[in-house]
Amino acid sequence: MTDAASPAMSRPLVPQGTPIVGIVGGGQLARMCAGPATELGLGVVVLAESADAAAAQVYAHAPVGRADDLERLQELARVCDVVTFDHEHVPGELLAVLESEGVALHPAPSALLHAQDKLVMRRALGEAGLPVPRWGEVTSRAELEEFAGGEWPVVLKTPRGGYDGKGVMVVTGADDLGRAEEWFDRAGGEPLLAEEAVAFGRELAVLVARNPSGEVRSWPVVHTVQEQGICTRVEAPAPELDPDLARDVRQAAEQLAVDLGVTGVMAVEIFETGTPAEGDRGWVVNELAMRPHNSGHWTQDGAVTDQFEQHLRAVLDLPLGDTSPRAAHTVMANVLGGSAEDLHAASRRVMAQDAGARLHLYGKEVRPGRKVGHVTVTGEDLDGLRRRATIARGLLEGTDDAPTTEGDTP
Amino acid sequence: MTDAASPAMSRPLVPQGTPIVGIVGGGQLARMCAGPATELGLGVVVLAESADAAAAQVYAHAPVGRADDLERLQELARVCDVVTFDHEHVPGELLAVLESEGVALHPAPSALLHAQDKLVMRRALGEAGLPVPRWGEVTSRAELEEFAGGEWPVVLKTPRGGYDGKGVMVVTGADDLGRAEEWFDRAGGEPLLAEEAVAFGRELAVLVARNPSGEVRSWPVVHTVQEQGICTRVEAPAPELDPDLARDVRQAAEQLAVDLGVTGVMAVEIFETGTPAEGDRGWVVNELAMRPHNSGHWTQDGAVTDQFEQHLRAVLDLPLGDTSPRAAHTVMANVLGGSAEDLHAASRRVMAQDAGARLHLYGKEVRPGRKVGHVTVTGEDLDGLRRRATIARGLLEGTDDAPTTEGDTP
Repeated sequence: MTDAASPAMSRPLVPQGTPIVGIVGGGQLARMCAGPATELGLGVVVLAESADAAAAQVYAHAPVGRADDLERLQELARVCDVVTFDHEHVPGELLAVLESEGVALHPAPSALLHAQDKLVMRRALGEAGLPVPRWGEVTSRAELEEFAGGEWPVVLKTPRGGYDGKGVMVVTGADDLGRAEEWFDRAGGEPLLAEEAVAFGRELAVLVARNPSGEVRSWPVVHTVQEQGICTRVEAPAPELDPDLARDVRQAAEQLAVDLGVTGVMAVEIFETGTPAEGDRGWVVNELAMRPHNSGHWTQDGAVTDQFEQHLRAVLDLPLGDTSPRAAHTVMANVLGGSAEDLHAASRRVMAQDAGARLHLYGKEVRPGRKVGHVTVTGEDLDGLRRRATIARGLLEGTDDAPTTEGDTP
Repeated sequence: MTDAASPAMSRPLVPQGTPIVGIVGGGQLARMCAGPATELGLGVVVLAESADAAAAQVYAHAPVGRADDLERLQELARVCDVVTFDHEHVPGELLAVLESEGVALHPAPSALLHAQDKLVMRRALGEAGLPVPRWGEVTSRAELEEFAGGEWPVVLKTPRGGYDGKGVMVVTGADDLGRAEEWFDRAGGEPLLAEEAVAFGRELAVLVARNPSGEVRSWPVVHTVQEQGICTRVEAPAPELDPDLARDVRQAAEQLAVDLGVTGVMAVEIFETGTPAEGDRGWVVNELAMRPHNSGHWTQDGAVTDQFEQHLRAVLDLPLGDTSPRAAHTVMANVLGGSAEDLHAASRRVMAQDAGARLHLYGKEVRPGRKVGHVTVTGEDLDGLRRRATIARGLLEGTDDAPTTEGDTP
């Protein structure tokens, strides 16, 4: 039901013929579409969680509404030409209603489902012939033990709703099954996903875009550096990556976008397990996301066309942009909420320290561990870029001392 | 007087400590600050000419109001930390009131005046020791003839209100003084600016930014290609420019920004008259603009920090960003309203033709000769870039036939 206080939506005041994109969700991904939408001359309406949501701060049209409010979603659809998503949390049954009403949803619910349900995703990847960890559906402690077959640890995942390490449990052995049992109880008979704990060298990601006409473009494969299940740094392209593996990964991601009928941007998160050899491609797919993704933030400063512009182009069935890198290396560092509560004072210090650092803030209040922004640096010298990114991140998170100036007493 | 229908302004819903910039005027320059403001996490309030102005379409806060409505300007100032300008049309007496009330205006009225009044500008450039055309103040036909001293043509300019070739008359000879007389009549005794018609090779421009703390940075000198008094293309950096001249121009522009106390971005338009030699620097200043400028649009895709971000940094007294080019060459082509009325259909054709072309549309209805957007391309091969820019511009202006596809009949 629509809140009586929510004003009716209207089409934006833009010149006739202007394509209008609706975005469900007002987080930073919707927010970062604002610059490209402005430059491409597009209209955007964001269905935002609140009037001060990250995206609501920067769009002329950001009515407040919930992603599970069918009437609000229908209203959004009426004032837009296509509808896309900042997140994967719109319930499938509402998407089905919208689809049946002829709303142009991108990605389509049938594609989006692969990012909403990890079991669906694992099945589809298997059918597409992509390398995946050994996996199974388990509904009880006994089935989990049977899956493990004495080989621990095993990774247990809730098929829906997990992100940034949430909804993932590493079961270390038979004596650790008590924790798993709680999850089975909570799932109430619904299957969980069990996976072998893959022995891997590093995490990679590849971003691919596809438009409804079938055009597909991917960006270079990147290295996503993880700390405690959260991506803290991305290096693009992934340094010293085997060129055969890079080609294989990009081709596989592009083919997967075709197989799943993806429209918009899709991120494929990958474990690098070795060097390509007979019977081993050297990588397995970890996760999928059907939207612009943290692993692609580097494209804002490091690629000719960034993932946000590309997503807008793709969902409007416009020809896709060049995904070539603009520089030899780009390093992107995530900024998590830390002890520096005044992000603007901190960003002033970053600017003073590094005139080439590119700042991206999400308009969010600082809370410990919350992603509140990112910084990118581009250039030739990878080690130098890593240092610069680390310094900038430290200043923004308040984990580094300010550079002292002459005359400061210790 | 404030229109009774204008709702009161309020501070944007942004996290505490977020700097808020007020922009007077809702044209494309204000519009193109939107992307950088979003990424820097800034708040912006635009005082727009209408609810569908170019900038009003893309900001969460764009109250409608006139640039000569003191109450509306005061309201804007109350909800912002600093106030800057999309154009130079705020009357000086209103700026003086705001300044006396302690409003942080950037640029300050004393600096802005040099872009509002060409006579003030000429005087200041002379005092700063910059090369300028021979000029004089004239109030009558007789004074104009005396200034010419038999040397025709002479350029006659209205000191205020001109742009894109408007407010400029080339008086070809003594038999052409009738037209000039009309201007003197209209000026009602106020002096006009007379200038020698400079024999020049090409037009150059240099963009410089200065913040209130005194930091100054300039971008590379560019070549602005003009057709009928309107800039149609910019090549950055200016190809085959004498390096001594380039250095001299940048240093002079940076010093001028200091001398005039500029805060924000200033554009210096220049005639290249020759090669630097004893007693001749090889260039003279044509015009000044105290804001982001068409000659700097190339920086959006061609420089590490673009002019719109730099302007925001400068007016907020943040440290300035790196102005280095991102590529060997950038070519920017202006798109004027032409026969292609549906800009979005045309831009789809540009995207299909050239995946690397960067489109920038202003959300304006197409009218003949009106600037409605621009395209940039970056790379190594200048001739190739020129061709690509010309093709893209032709498609957007409707002056080129669409590329024919196989099977098309003529």
